Formats: sequence, structure tokens, C-alpha cells
Amino acid sequence: MPVKLFDTTLRDGAQMEGISFSLEDKIKIAKLLDELGVHYIEGGWPGSNPKDIEFFKQIREIKLKHAKICAFSSTRRPEMQVEEDKILRALVEAETEVVSIFGKCWDFHVTEALKTTLSENLKMIEDSIHFLKARGKEVIFDAEHFFDGYKANRKYALEALKAAEGAGADVLCLCDTNGGSLAFEVQDIINEIKDQFKTPLGIHAHNDSETAVSVSGMAVKCGCTHVQGTINGYGERCGNANLCSIIPILKLKLGVDCVTDKQLKSLTEVSRHIAEIANLPQSAHQPFVGRSAFAHKGGIHVSAVTKNPGTYEHVQPELVGNERRVTISELSGVSNLLVKAEAYGLKLKKDSPAAKTLIKNLKEMESRGYSFEEGEASFELLVRKELGKFTPFFDLEEYKIETEKVGDQPSSVIAHIHIKVKGKHYEAKGKGDGPINALDNALRKVLENIYPQLTTMKLTDYKVRVLNSEAGTAAKVRVAIESADEKRVWNTVGVSGNVIEASWLALVDALEYKLMLGMK
Amino acid sequence: MPVKLFDTTLRDGAQMEGISFSLEDKIKIAKLLDELGVHYIEGGWPGSNPKDIEFFKQIREIKLKHAKICAFSSTRRPEMQVEEDKILRALVEAETEVVSIFGKCWDFHVTEALKTTLSENLKMIEDSIHFLKARGKEVIFDAEHFFDGYKANRKYALEALKAAEGAGADVLCLCDTNGGSLAFEVQDIINEIKDQFKTPLGIHAHNDSETAVSVSGMAVKCGCTHVQGTINGYGERCGNANLCSIIPILKLKLGVDCVTDKQLKSLTEVSRHIAEIANLPQSAHQPFVGRSAFAHKGGIHVSAVTKNPGTYEHVQPELVGNERRVTISELSGVSNLLVKAEAYGLKLKKDSPAAKTLIKNLKEMESRGYSFEEGEASFELLVRKELGKFTPFFDLEEYKIETEKVGDQPSSVIAHIHIKVKGKHYEAKGKGDGPINALDNALRKVLENIYPQLTTMKLTDYKVRVLNSEAGTAAKVRVAIESADEKRVWNTVGVSGNVIEASWLALVDALEYKLMLGMK
Repeated sequence: MPVKLFDTTLRDGAQMEGISFSLEDKIKIAKLLDELGVHYIEGGWPGSNPKDIEFFKQIREIKLKHAKICAFSSTRRPEMQVEEDKILRALVEAETEVVSIFGKCWDFHVTEALKTTLSENLKMIEDSIHFLKARGKEVIFDAEHFFDGYKANRKYALEALKAAEGAGADVLCLCDTNGGSLAFEVQDIINEIKDQFKTPLGIHAHNDSETAVSVSGMAVKCGCTHVQGTINGYGERCGNANLCSIIPILKLKLGVDCVTDKQLKSLTEVSRHIAEIANLPQSAHQPFVGRSAFAHKGGIHVSAVTKNPGTYEHVQPELVGNERRVTISELSGVSNLLVKAEAYGLKLKKDSPAAKTLIKNLKEMESRGYSFEEGEASFELLVRKELGKFTPFFDLEEYKIETEKVGDQPSSVIAHIHIKVKGKHYEAKGKGDGPINALDNALRKVLENIYPQLTTMKLTDYKVRVLNSEAGTAAKVRVAIESADEKRVWNTVGVSGNVIEASWLALVDALEYKLMLGMK
Repeated sequence: MPVKLFDTTLRDGAQMEGISFSLEDKIKIAKLLDELGVHYIEGGWPGSNPKDIEFFKQIREIKLKHAKICAFSSTRRPEMQVEEDKILRALVEAETEVVSIFGKCWDFHVTEALKTTLSENLKMIEDSIHFLKARGKEVIFDAEHFFDGYKANRKYALEALKAAEGAGADVLCLCDTNGGSLAFEVQDIINEIKDQFKTPLGIHAHNDSETAVSVSGMAVKCGCTHVQGTINGYGERCGNANLCSIIPILKLKLGVDCVTDKQLKSLTEVSRHIAEIANLPQSAHQPFVGRSAFAHKGGIHVSAVTKNPGTYEHVQPELVGNERRVTISELSGVSNLLVKAEAYGLKLKKDSPAAKTLIKNLKEMESRGYSFEEGEASFELLVRKELGKFTPFFDLEEYKIETEKVGDQPSSVIAHIHIKVKGKHYEAKGKGDGPINALDNALRKVLENIYPQLTTMKLTDYKVRVLNSEAGTAAKVRVAIESADEKRVWNTVGVSGNVIEASWLALVDALEYKLMLGMK
């Protein structure tokens, strides 16, 4: 049976602490989701959030290839005519082909949170779905707290589902709203109930027990044909079920038709791009799409995976658009170093003095806080320097940075640099938003005249990681810079107790690496 | 049936990209694991890592309350007498009561990675276990790649387990080494095989399919009585099964005896402390123990959870030593603000001009990149200022910071400050590791004389988050500072395009908050 993917990154995902999508963000994300091949995009709750009304207006003007837009709402409020409920009216006014409405299935929630009677709640479900079906909508019924409700009062939870089915809902989506259910419970419950319904069943899981992906997979295994989740598992508390894991599990492990091979290959990129829009770092350790998901560190694993990738990889990274990496680290020893050197086109022999010195320097720098996993271009420069294959393109004589703030005025920064290039002395001043930006500006005033290829290079990412953070403002910091030109992306790194010095080191490496690229 | 918890944070966890434990780190972590109540602590691989030999030497001198220390190794190498294998000799020399050894169960791995015959591999398992049992060890057999092996060649995978049982292994631990197995597969396989063995079965899962916790829970449900995992799910690639989720699931959801109620209450603290030692931020969204695991943001959830916590919480946060939080954010609206003001002992009415101005300012600051979730003390100061309940303890007239670097010398930093306190003018100079440390030092030279209570206050954490990182070195940064005195911990935040200015704002709030505490 094919499975329909229902993405709620823009609605439930936006509830995550630390996420705040602008309207432009939401439009960008909707386009990415459409490319990825999800079947439904839940865009927001027009009745509760004015920003969402604007989203539905704008998204109507955009031609999506594949996905249907869905607007979300609750059932009508208690003791009210459905036509008079503003929230449901706003839902209809969103003019989407599909709507999702959540209704209560847990008796305790009806009486405690909603403060109404069990029978009124059933009528609320029926009335709301009738109202929406009469207006030609495809209706997805989100059975809120279904599993907790079923455990507490089996009969009532089923009555709520039957009310929705009777009123014409197109999907009955079983929600594990509190995220407390385990895979075997979901398995038992779905197997117990599934024969009582003709309407397709769906699953909506939260990750409070760290089981949302597993619960979703189990639900499909038991016959659910509609899966709700978010990109990168974004969502309130511990997040929603992560579509970036569910999609490859369905497609590669359960053999379920949901996206095309080509769409699956875009998964890593979509995950990273949406993380960027959300302004959150993608976890390196995220299954399938994380930078470390197919990274090999331990010596035994590396030697085995070099012989045959299947030995330590559960799926081929290329299928989800990710890649295998061999990491640089003190645990990895000389064999990884040799693999890297070969990749740089350098000759390095296993027991040579250069290899030994490099391993020693590497360990010493790592003990000071360096992590070449975040700055491989810095690592390549280190290897080249050691092998006598690199001469610096400029040398620092002196820099001086003055930061000043008067009263409530914004602070100002000026950097003065003195450098030597090809035996000649140069100096320049630069202003900037902060000290590192000022330094970069000053440096470029000199260098771009001498090395015009630097004008095509941009700094595309800048990260500061506090290493021994319990030392407060005296903490050591690691700065990682990502740079790009029209063809390549590279990462450099610097460590110091002074954020400016750490940034300087990473900045110099970034520029030197670009200059070296022209010489290779 | 009680379940034995086997922690491998120090061995398999240390394989994680970004982790590098020192010997002192490992000793500290072992003590914390003992407090938490795990039954086994796998300390390392003495045959492969010299640092681990030192760990086993030192840990012997420490009296643990509860946990047994375990050393890890492979079975003997092919075509070798077991007594001559240096790796196994090093294992015995670690002098632990318990040892774990891994042996291959997947025919493909035996012939491809190990390059030996299927029968020699069975003899390697038998010989190694005999050798260890003859030396009085409790032996845990890690059946590497068991599930993949069983799927590929059922007969051979079972022969490997039987070889281990026959040689006297105390536990047969079924490993999902590549992390590719789903809960229903593990369920089917364990149910198929369990009656063929008298030896207790264990589970060791990896998180490559985001299902490691679920797989571990399912294995216990099917009869496994030994569970391996790591704190915070640390481990290679996507990590190992996370004991911080498995322990509460076993205890609170499956009713399995594993740790005491008191030990369970220490879970959040142990998770955070070990994250600190690993020098990695604990994920706020980590189930059970994360800062956001019981945080409520959406308006509906907040009002329901205030009425009855059971409505949106799957377990009580106190049971795992965590706490419920209501977060400050633009999605939350006025009702959360009122809850907070009340907690500060301030009177704020729902429709008052002060409440409206506050909401407006809050939204404006959030749009500039402020996140009061990371700096609630800054938020409290904001509320107090708006209500006229706060007068600054000092005012900046001017600061100036000079950072200088000459050639290869380390950089130097001096900060000059001019401030006004109680109508009088003061100035001071401070040196520091970096600009912010210098500023802090200068400020304290003046302020500690006037407000001696500041001497009891320390900055305990300092974080820099780049907001629009694609702007490179001109990126906006958010600085969050954690401070503490003998009684309390508080968090402040500042945002600017200049890292120094952002730090200054957070630093001033941190000092002001401490001074205000004395006045409340």
C-alpha cells in the first residue's frame, strides 16, 4: 500500500522552542517540501495565528508541483453553532483543498481541559466535519491523545473515531499527542481496532519517549497509510516524528511507495536547507542526513568500511543524498591520515618521520581544543606545511583593533593591520560590525589588489564554540569559518582564549586555502 | 524480571565525533554512573588504547558503591593460540571482575572483514571465552551484527551464539551494530530464538534508524534482561541507545526493576553533568532530561497544563529530576507573560498599558534575535524596568578595548572603562584572555569595592551563537551568560553584530541581576 506523507513542520514544528518562522521562511520551506515530494503541507492554524492567514493567501499564488496545502484547526467550540465559530470560519477562508481538524478522544481531556460533556464532544466532531465536507474539503481528522484515550477509556476513544468516520472524514489520524507511547503498545492498539474502520488510518507521533520514528514505522507496518511528521523532527518539547528518518525507513526498509528515488536523494539537502532557514544547526548525528551519519572514526571500522562499505553501513549514503566520511581524530590513528593525504594528492608513507610528526602535532592541537572535523581545509594546510608543500602567501607583522562604546551609542570598531606580501610591507585600516569583520575588511583592502582571485571568495558561515564554558568570560573558544567561491566550499578553524585571535587564525587559513587552490 | 544496565559511554560512547575524554574525565564519569545505579561500566579497550590501561589501573583504587567495572576486547585473532594473543592478555591484565568480548555472527563479516573461515570464527569465540572463564571472569559475549547476521544466515548466527553459550558466557548480548534494525524485526527475531538459549539475553542497539531506544525497550519486552547503552546516546555515527531514555521507560512504563526511585531522580543531573564533561551542549529537546522536555509554549497547552499537568505530560518531570517550564516566546502571548510576572512577585494586569508595551518590546527584541528562553534574568530585568521597579546600579560612560598582535606572539587585550555609580565617576583598566574577559576584569575593579556582594558571583557559562551565520564575519551574534553565587544560578543574554557589544549587554545584565537580588 502506498503511504501519504503529511508534513507539519510549518504548524506543529513551529511550536519548537527556538523556532520562529517568518512568512518568507514559511514560503521557502513549503517549496522545499514540495520538491521533496510530501503529499500534504500543513501550513498553520488560520484561526489562531494572523501570520498564518497571510501564508495561505500567498501560497495560493504559488504553483506547487505535487503537494496539497492543508490548514489546521480545532473542532467547533462547545455549545455553539458550527457556522458561528470564528475559528472554523477562518479555516474555510484559508481556501485550502485540504483541512485537518483535531478533536478530543480522551475522556479525561474532554471533561478536564475542554470542560464539556462526553456527548457534546462527539457532536462537536460530527458537526465540524459535516460543515467542512459540505464545503467540499478533504478532511483529515486528528484524533488527539488517541492512544492515551484508548488506554484510559477504550469505548469512548472508539466512539470519537466513529463519529469522525460517520461524518465523512477522509483520514482518521491516530495521535500520540503526549509522546508517551511505545512501539508495542501502538502495535497492539492498531491491530485491535483497525478492522472496525473503513476509512484510512494515519499516525501522528511525538518524541517524548524517543520512540516517535519507531512508532510511526510500526503503525505503517500495522496498516496505517498516512504518516504525519516534521523535517528534522522539529516540534514542541522533544519534537515530532522525524520525516527525515521516516521517509528512508519506509522507502528503503519497508519497501513502501512514498517518494521517488530522485526525491529521496534530495533528503539531506532539504534537511540542511530547512535547518538553515530555522537558524538551527542540523545535528551532525542525525540519522540518515547528519554529517556524521556515515562517518567512520574507529580504526577497525575504517579498515573494514574501506574494504566493503556494507560492513558498517545500514543503507548506502548516496540514496539519501549523504556521503561517507572518514574523520580526522586522535582515535583514528595513522591509517585515516594516509587516506586523507592521498585524497589531497600528497605522498605520505606510513612510518615516515613526516607522518609521525603530523600525528604528534595533531594530538597536541586536539588537546588544545582543535577539531579538524570542523575545519578540514586547516588540516590540509597543516599537512602541506609539514611536507614542505606550502609557502604562506602573506605574513602578519601586527594588527591592532580598537572597540569603543560611548554611553548608549552603538559600539564602533576599527582594525589596523601591517602585513608583508612578497617581501613588501603594506598597511590598511578597516571598519566593521564587529572586530573580526573589521579585520577581514582591512586585510582584503591589501590582499585583493595583489591576489584578485580573493574577490570571488565569500565567508558563508561563522561559528563560535565555547570550549571550557565553565571558565566564564575567560573561556577558550573555537571559531569555525566556512568559505566558498563559485566552485567550492571549505572549512577552517582556529582556537584561542581570545575570540579575536581564534577568528584571525581561521580567517588566515580560509584566505590561504583559497590562494593555494589556484596553485595546485 | 529485573534488568541489568550496562553503560558503555566510556568505550562505545567515546567513539563519537567530537568526544575526547581525558583520564580524569573518565574517572569522573565512572563515579557519576555508579551514583546513577548502572550495574556495569564498560571502561575501555585495554588492548587497543593505552589510555584505557591507565583508567583500569586508577579505577581499581576507587571504591564504587554498586557498579562493576568491565573491560572490552575482541575474541582472539584467527590462527593464533589464545594465550599468545596480546589483546586478550591486556584484557586480563586490566584486572576487572567482568569482561565483554565481541565476536562475529554475520558470515559476510567473517569472510570479508576478518578474512577467515566460518569454523575458525566459532573456535575463536569458544577459545576466548574458555580462556576468560578459566581466569574467573564474568563474561559478556557481544554478538556483533547479530540481527544483520541472522537476516543473512540464520543458521550461522545461531551457531555463533551457541558457541558462546557452550563455552560458558554469562550473557549473550545481541548487537545491532549497524543500527539498521526496526522494532518489529527485533521483536520477531528475539521471539524466534529465545527458547533456544538458557543464558540471559542482552541488547546493544545503535541509532542509525532513530530507533535504538525503541528497539531496546522492545527487546526487554521480549525477554532480554541486559541492556547496553550510553548516557545521552553518545556513540559513533548517530549514537548508541540512550540510557537516559531507556532507564525511565523501563522503570516508569514497563515497570521493570533497574534503578531505585532516588537514582532515577538523579538522571537529569547525571545527563547534564556528563554532557559538561564531554564538553557538548545537552540537547534541550532530549527526551526526559532536556531543558525543553517538559516546556510548554503553545497557548492551549499552557492553559491546560496549568489546570492539570497530566493533560500534556507523559510522565511527571520530578520523577527523572527534571522540571516543568512555561517558556517566554512570541507564540505564547500574554498569558505566559502574566504567569512569569506573578512568579517574579510583580503585579501585571492582562490589558494594562504596561503589559501591551512589554509584549510589543518583546516581539521587537525577538525579531532582532533575542531569545529570552536562554536569558530569563534579562527578561525579568526588562519587565521590572517597564514597571518602574528597577533602577540601574551603574551607567556606562565609555569603554575602549585594544587588542593587539605582533607577528607570532599571542595577542594581548586591554579594556578601559568609564562608569558612573551613585552619581560619581570611576575609571579602570583590565587585562584579559579575550576582550570580554578584560572588560569583566575592569568593571569588577570598580564595582566590587562599591558592591562587595559581587565577589561571591561567578560567571559559570558563556555561549556564543551566530544568528545569521551566512553573513560570514558580519554575522549577528547572541551571547548567553550563566552566572551563579552560592545560592542561585541565572542566565542573561545580549544580541549585536559585534560580539563584544553582545557580551557587554549580557554581562551588564548578569551583574545588575545579582545586585537586584540583594534588594528584592
